[in-house]
Amino acid sequence: MSLLIVGSVALDSIESHAGRVKDVVGGSAVYASYAASLFTRPAIVGVVGDDFPQTEVTSLKRKGIDTQGLERVPGGKTFRWGGRYAEDMIQRETLFTELNVFETFQPTLSPSYRSIRDVFLANIDPDLQLDVLRQVRNPRLVVCDTMNLWIDTKRPSLLKLLKRTDPVRKIDALLLNDEEARMLGDAASLAAAARSIARLGVSRRTAPARRGDARLHRTEPLRIIIKKGEHGCMMFGPEGVFAAPALPLAKAKDPTGAGDTFAGGMLGWLAGRALTPANWRRAILAGTAMASFCVEDFGVKRLRGLEREDFRKRVDELRAMMAVGKM
Amino acid sequence: MSLLIVGSVALDSIESHAGRVKDVVGGSAVYASYAASLFTRPAIVGVVGDDFPQTEVTSLKRKGIDTQGLERVPGGKTFRWGGRYAEDMIQRETLFTELNVFETFQPTLSPSYRSIRDVFLANIDPDLQLDVLRQVRNPRLVVCDTMNLWIDTKRPSLLKLLKRTDPVRKIDALLLNDEEARMLGDAASLAAAARSIARLGVSRRTAPARRGDARLHRTEPLRIIIKKGEHGCMMFGPEGVFAAPALPLAKAKDPTGAGDTFAGGMLGWLAGRALTPANWRRAILAGTAMASFCVEDFGVKRLRGLEREDFRKRVDELRAMMAVGKM
Repeated sequence: MSLLIVGSVALDSIESHAGRVKDVVGGSAVYASYAASLFTRPAIVGVVGDDFPQTEVTSLKRKGIDTQGLERVPGGKTFRWGGRYAEDMIQRETLFTELNVFETFQPTLSPSYRSIRDVFLANIDPDLQLDVLRQVRNPRLVVCDTMNLWIDTKRPSLLKLLKRTDPVRKIDALLLNDEEARMLGDAASLAAAARSIARLGVSRRTAPARRGDARLHRTEPLRIIIKKGEHGCMMFGPEGVFAAPALPLAKAKDPTGAGDTFAGGMLGWLAGRALTPANWRRAILAGTAMASFCVEDFGVKRLRGLEREDFRKRVDELRAMMAVGKM
Repeated sequence: MSLLIVGSVALDSIESHAGRVKDVVGGSAVYASYAASLFTRPAIVGVVGDDFPQTEVTSLKRKGIDTQGLERVPGGKTFRWGGRYAEDMIQRETLFTELNVFETFQPTLSPSYRSIRDVFLANIDPDLQLDVLRQVRNPRLVVCDTMNLWIDTKRPSLLKLLKRTDPVRKIDALLLNDEEARMLGDAASLAAAARSIARLGVSRRTAPARRGDARLHRTEPLRIIIKKGEHGCMMFGPEGVFAAPALPLAKAKDPTGAGDTFAGGMLGWLAGRALTPANWRRAILAGTAMASFCVEDFGVKRLRGLEREDFRKRVDELRAMMAVGKM
């Protein structure tokens, strides 16, 4: 296992202009795991109830996803979410949210999980993200996602998470959407917002314990990856800004999980590869391509049937959209 | 003269978080001309009143812009527009619009202007755009811009303009923003909107008169260029989709005229160059770079002081933002 994914596991009921589905498997950890499974062997950490179909667990396993961290609460019910998308596929109305077993979720990592080098803290309560971060041993890469709800209601925890006081267990990259970036960075322009969020990740830290001294230690600044839906994605890193478009999709059916799929694709592609600026850019394209598949059908349906060859073609399309000769 | 630019000439009063200015020169034709003048010799066609400062005409000329088509109406007042931008620099409130001499504007091209090969019909009433199009002789390239007002109130004229029934005098590319594209194309997705707008440009046309026959003649489909402000630009052409990001500007002062500057930069760069798909893409980057300068100061101030070297650096920045290695 090369990628640990901690997040929500849900049964979603979704309506859009393309139809409706009831109790299909979803949740940030599930979307991210399916996407990552095209490139690496992810391990999923989440919680479900008695009602979570065993066939769904089998489907995850069939994709090479390690499900030992998928805790089943006896007598409990799985987290349920219902939503309806407007015609523009951007506006959405939450019809219901039943937290159920997710409400008391306390992720505990098994010893083998603690040693996984790459970690994706999918969108869950930042206190839980902090808790997971404390449990990992010596991660190579930690990426976290968040949402407007936490920026609004759990800002202190989120800031603590981003502050990176521990030199080993620290967030390397933060994923969020443009609205959330403006909210967290308190700026109208995304460039200004990214700059101010990056500052949240600057910590006067001590050197790793094994060095035995307490001098100030500089690390790479926090990498900010802003998802803009149909407008693509921007990455603000130490090497500068990278902008990737989204694939124009005339026939999106269900945008649920697109952001988590983006993250899973990105991290799955990065797993086992060097964390160079060039690879970060390629990983963004991998995530973008995966997200474009996600929205083509309800739930994880399209992701499940995906082959490496489909991915390759989609990435080529994306690269063709960005290609421009010398000037 | 290699590029004819027909549009509005205005005196603008603008307020933003960065300050306010009163009666500064503006209008679609002025922004486009200044931008184009970095690359070629544009000729501007527009109307002003007695109150239009002669020093402004001199400034245009100093940039190599031909101002013979700038009609001055004795006793008339120049078109005036006043607007205020919200903190996000996207929302704007129109404070006043005084059409003045612009209300009865009837552009008449001099014989030398009629032979200019590249034509930009900047954002004016589509009936006037049609009128100008009828006057040009044998254009190589005609690009037109439009806005929500005309889509709303003059749709039949706009459709006539886009229909391209005349094989010689026809629109090659349409420029509009994302909101306008969705409106004109009647679709929520930009890809679907672009497709439906392109269909508006399909005409069962006769071959050029000199061929002496009346068989159906196929031309290149209408090229659609969608401006998305801070999200960049998408071009839907016969060769596929191209997406260019915008430069992230933490300190925009005044977005007025950015779209016209984009168009002027694009067309100025294209003037005298082959209309290949690769050059269209490069032209989009040229327009993007010029628009990024436009917003850095009020009115045309930044454009006026611009050197080729500034442009080159900005294009390099933009290209660096888009660069990604093989995957």
